[in-house]
Amino acid sequence: MTSVSEIPDIVIGRLPLYLRALNQLVSQGQTITSSHELGQQLGISSAQIRKDLSHFGEFGKQGTGYQINHLMAQLKQILQVNREWSMVVVGAGDLGRALAHYGGFVERGFRVVGVFDNDPSKIGTGSGDLKVRNINDMNDFVRERAIKIAMLAVPGKVAQAICDSLVDGGVRAILNYAPITLSVPENVHVQYIDPVMHLQRMTYYLD
Amino acid sequence: MTSVSEIPDIVIGRLPLYLRALNQLVSQGQTITSSHELGQQLGISSAQIRKDLSHFGEFGKQGTGYQINHLMAQLKQILQVNREWSMVVVGAGDLGRALAHYGGFVERGFRVVGVFDNDPSKIGTGSGDLKVRNINDMNDFVRERAIKIAMLAVPGKVAQAICDSLVDGGVRAILNYAPITLSVPENVHVQYIDPVMHLQRMTYYLD
Repeated sequence: MTSVSEIPDIVIGRLPLYLRALNQLVSQGQTITSSHELGQQLGISSAQIRKDLSHFGEFGKQGTGYQINHLMAQLKQILQVNREWSMVVVGAGDLGRALAHYGGFVERGFRVVGVFDNDPSKIGTGSGDLKVRNINDMNDFVRERAIKIAMLAVPGKVAQAICDSLVDGGVRAILNYAPITLSVPENVHVQYIDPVMHLQRMTYYLD
Repeated sequence: MTSVSEIPDIVIGRLPLYLRALNQLVSQGQTITSSHELGQQLGISSAQIRKDLSHFGEFGKQGTGYQINHLMAQLKQILQVNREWSMVVVGAGDLGRALAHYGGFVERGFRVVGVFDNDPSKIGTGSGDLKVRNINDMNDFVRERAIKIAMLAVPGKVAQAICDSLVDGGVRAILNYAPITLSVPENVHVQYIDPVMHLQRMTYYLD
């Protein structure tokens, strides 16, 4: 088992894929799987899967496969998703509202606890944790509640300023839906969700 | 210049990143850039960028950098986004509606021309191309209009069946927002957008 700092980011990036595939197998009633089966489902070689998992210790025995529940528990622990994370959504447009109401977060360990916008016609709409708050209160909100994760669903031209304020308030992980590249300090992680980039990656292959 | 089939998919996957970064530089008024500058913006080594671009020919001269407009035009041609692609959105929930109304598609070469759902209370709502159609008409619609791209914003339990129908109708590229892994023939490309997977990839690094 190597120390955490030696594990390549690209390996970390595949662990959520494995977790999702295992989840799917469980929902089909399966209790045991193999690197071969996982590989076929994901389009990744079984050797790669075994190598990735070997960074974190021994998960399966040659010939007997993986106990799915055990492997999932281990992956959740490694990824630190064996707990619940609070998040804020910034931007209460179509996409922000879709994110705020997305049913898939809570069951996988994430909970939206605040939604922010600068549009007076949106502030105050919604209810409970999903009532839209004034963006001027965002920095204090994340600081006081020690919130580490934000989802950014705002126009590109304001995204960097909002990002800076979130980081100043202590946010360390940003899921960015705005179509720009954000500048952040080294200890802040950004993941980009830009549907056009995914589409562009596929059109290359179309006739 | 190597032939298309030899270019690794991982290189293709970085080209949209380059295109977006170049777009951002242009919007800041810049006309020339360097692999060094691009690399700093994207967190990719300048050597990697030069190597990626060298698959497609000569784009820059040593010491003079890249003409941004020329490089962008070439990347668009390579990715086949120097034209407009028609797409359908399947699922007219919060997310499907956000996708159908997303302003960032048309300016980057993608246009939603049909939205489908199976919910009678949604069918017929909306207007123009974005009027929600009956999902029973989806297969004919994509076939008759030779639509190659679909975005899937439906619950996981119906995603595979809808995917099969889209593929049967001639769709060859699917942007999947449903939280399951789709099975498709080899000539069909799938990209996954699952915010939880991106979040899980970042929680690994949080204290």
